[in-house]
Amino acid sequence: MAKKNAFYAQSGGVTAVINASACGVIETARQHSEVIGKVYAGRNGIIGALTEDLIDTSQESDSAIAALRHTPGGAFGSCRYKLKGLEENKAEYERLIEVFKAHDIGYFFYNGGGDSQDTAHKVSQLGDQLGYPITCIGVPKTVDNDLPITDNCPGFGSVAKYVAVSVREAALDVASMARTSTKVFILEVMGRHAGWIAAAGGVAAEQEGDAPHIILFPEIPFEQEQFLQKVDASVKDYGYCVIVASEGVRNKEGQFLSETGTRDAFGHAQLGGLAPLVAQIVREKLGYKYHWAVADYLQRAARHIASQVDVEQAYAVGKAAVEFAVRGENAVMPTIIRKSSDPYRWEIGSAPLKDVANVEKDLPRSFITPEGFGITEEARSYLTPLIQGEDYPPYKNGLPVYVQLKNAPVEKKLKESFTLR
Amino acid sequence: MAKKNAFYAQSGGVTAVINASACGVIETARQHSEVIGKVYAGRNGIIGALTEDLIDTSQESDSAIAALRHTPGGAFGSCRYKLKGLEENKAEYERLIEVFKAHDIGYFFYNGGGDSQDTAHKVSQLGDQLGYPITCIGVPKTVDNDLPITDNCPGFGSVAKYVAVSVREAALDVASMARTSTKVFILEVMGRHAGWIAAAGGVAAEQEGDAPHIILFPEIPFEQEQFLQKVDASVKDYGYCVIVASEGVRNKEGQFLSETGTRDAFGHAQLGGLAPLVAQIVREKLGYKYHWAVADYLQRAARHIASQVDVEQAYAVGKAAVEFAVRGENAVMPTIIRKSSDPYRWEIGSAPLKDVANVEKDLPRSFITPEGFGITEEARSYLTPLIQGEDYPPYKNGLPVYVQLKNAPVEKKLKESFTLR
Repeated sequence: MAKKNAFYAQSGGVTAVINASACGVIETARQHSEVIGKVYAGRNGIIGALTEDLIDTSQESDSAIAALRHTPGGAFGSCRYKLKGLEENKAEYERLIEVFKAHDIGYFFYNGGGDSQDTAHKVSQLGDQLGYPITCIGVPKTVDNDLPITDNCPGFGSVAKYVAVSVREAALDVASMARTSTKVFILEVMGRHAGWIAAAGGVAAEQEGDAPHIILFPEIPFEQEQFLQKVDASVKDYGYCVIVASEGVRNKEGQFLSETGTRDAFGHAQLGGLAPLVAQIVREKLGYKYHWAVADYLQRAARHIASQVDVEQAYAVGKAAVEFAVRGENAVMPTIIRKSSDPYRWEIGSAPLKDVANVEKDLPRSFITPEGFGITEEARSYLTPLIQGEDYPPYKNGLPVYVQLKNAPVEKKLKESFTLR
Repeated sequence: MAKKNAFYAQSGGVTAVINASACGVIETARQHSEVIGKVYAGRNGIIGALTEDLIDTSQESDSAIAALRHTPGGAFGSCRYKLKGLEENKAEYERLIEVFKAHDIGYFFYNGGGDSQDTAHKVSQLGDQLGYPITCIGVPKTVDNDLPITDNCPGFGSVAKYVAVSVREAALDVASMARTSTKVFILEVMGRHAGWIAAAGGVAAEQEGDAPHIILFPEIPFEQEQFLQKVDASVKDYGYCVIVASEGVRNKEGQFLSETGTRDAFGHAQLGGLAPLVAQIVREKLGYKYHWAVADYLQRAARHIASQVDVEQAYAVGKAAVEFAVRGENAVMPTIIRKSSDPYRWEIGSAPLKDVANVEKDLPRSFITPEGFGITEEARSYLTPLIQGEDYPPYKNGLPVYVQLKNAPVEKKLKESFTLR
């Protein structure tokens, strides 16, 4: 096998552990210097390849690369930029080949969710369709946990842990004060299309009456009357009500609830997300004092409370991606195979990119209780292993020490620049 | 000294470490069983005393009490219920005396902020004014950090750490994506009347260009033009802009900005807090893609990322309160005296309740940069010691193990119930 350089890019929304995958890719590539030369990272993801804006990771020390394992965000920058089909925008693919040729790149590692695996799949076809063979491996990542085949997606476990811990903690606060103050607390979490993250909030409850008392899933159309009855019952039975609400909650007509609010003086839909809207409904109809929180990026950046399992799996898929490439596999993505839930055992598997691309894994209806406001034991036994273990970053002066890479640019070799659409 | 029982109550908004103070009070009282009998806790704070709803903490095991040290929220329940002056509502004080007499209570430990220290001060006067002498010690607690005399308040350091860590983490996320996605991120934090918590966000920055790029303080009237210029400059210079906004930001007229929004169809002020409002201004005037988060209770319940210094101080003021009482002091509150900032050294002092009650400590103007959007070195050297060290709770199945006390009621001895106003 002729020695070639590798290209690695981060794609889509970043996570608390996507850099752990980068760490796995780069550390493993460094161990295979007989076949992999330098690892070039795309600055801001695939855009870095298109604009020939490459980062030379060989200029980073071993300790800097090791520190990626405990650093959240995307160390090389990421982007939301989906390549179109070969027919629709052949110029992009030709440009990729130009850049890859110029920098002697023979390996393509693409770290992302569903759209990104689709891109990786398209790039893997460059050999057949445009005569530039390249070893192309997807590296799974998404807080949305919606990739098919793999049992779970690196990134999700840490968000799940953050949400479950936050619900447990905030619930103790609300319970303390409920007699004379806030009785209803709403935590809005991510998950526009699927309720995986909202479901994770349910793990905080261990026995009858524990928070969260209500979970609002995107999968269950919002029924105001039933919801209000449930809130009221929770306040009457337990003294308070903690609600985990997915940002993607919809009404019966399928509209996002967060977009059905009133409009401001400019006619814009009222900003404010789902949580304040739900709070308003509670206030108007039940009159209870409420508080609400919107975790937003905090939940997917919270490396300080990352799941140890998630960190290990994120690293493992990065490592496996390089190992797959080294042994000549192509157009595949490492997966996580669950061997057992209790005790939790897992191993790395492999899935063809063509089977991963553009398939979304839904939250099974069987994970949601029949009435639609909670999770089932089946969900709990799926979710609980994914939040196991703590993997604390180092601290200095009271704050986590996260690495800032040098991110030195690779000298450009092409004369022409490329204009992004 | 005749042996008497003690009454302990938690008051006002709870914190990640108020139970550490409870732990200090109860463990220390148990060591002084020659003069302190049982510690009765008020269920839901002072309300528990007025309604004779007492909790017998002697029924809790040593290990359960020890676990209070790492459990957030208020383990006995708290309330917002301020006693009026003796003249205005003498009935309440007479009732307190009835309950204290009935349960042979000679010590009163009141764990709270400014209003609570005022109540403690009034109760300390019962001896002189109503002939029921009681040893009365305040135990400081408030995330708002606004008690006078003490260098800082237990509860604040942990919120400060949560906010600084969250800003640092979310900023890495935003920076990763800014090229093609979110350029402006706003984190709304607590502090309706003072910018202590917002200031803590500033500690996340270590060098020029680090987030947060802007802090909005309640102390600095919001000037939209200057703010927008600063946002725009940050995006142009660094590629993104992270803003920490106190919920208490006001306009030049002194109105809370969060209350100046549009009104909905019912004429209610638009809900949604300060962060979405600031986001809307950014979108309308600059057109940048934004995200916002509202930490709300998550910030003051986040025991998982508590400051070790804060936990130690919270315990120490509880312990000192009992020691003060045992050695015959009265109408005082333990304080934290800073001996040195670097290295940080502190010790416990004492302040008369009369000097603490109803005095608020403002954030010094010298802690805010002249332009009003950042913190000074003076602020940094004050704040940094308070977030030092991690004090992780134990975990089981991926979640922190927080104690739920039995909270067994003390048998009522009074025939008459008491109606709260």
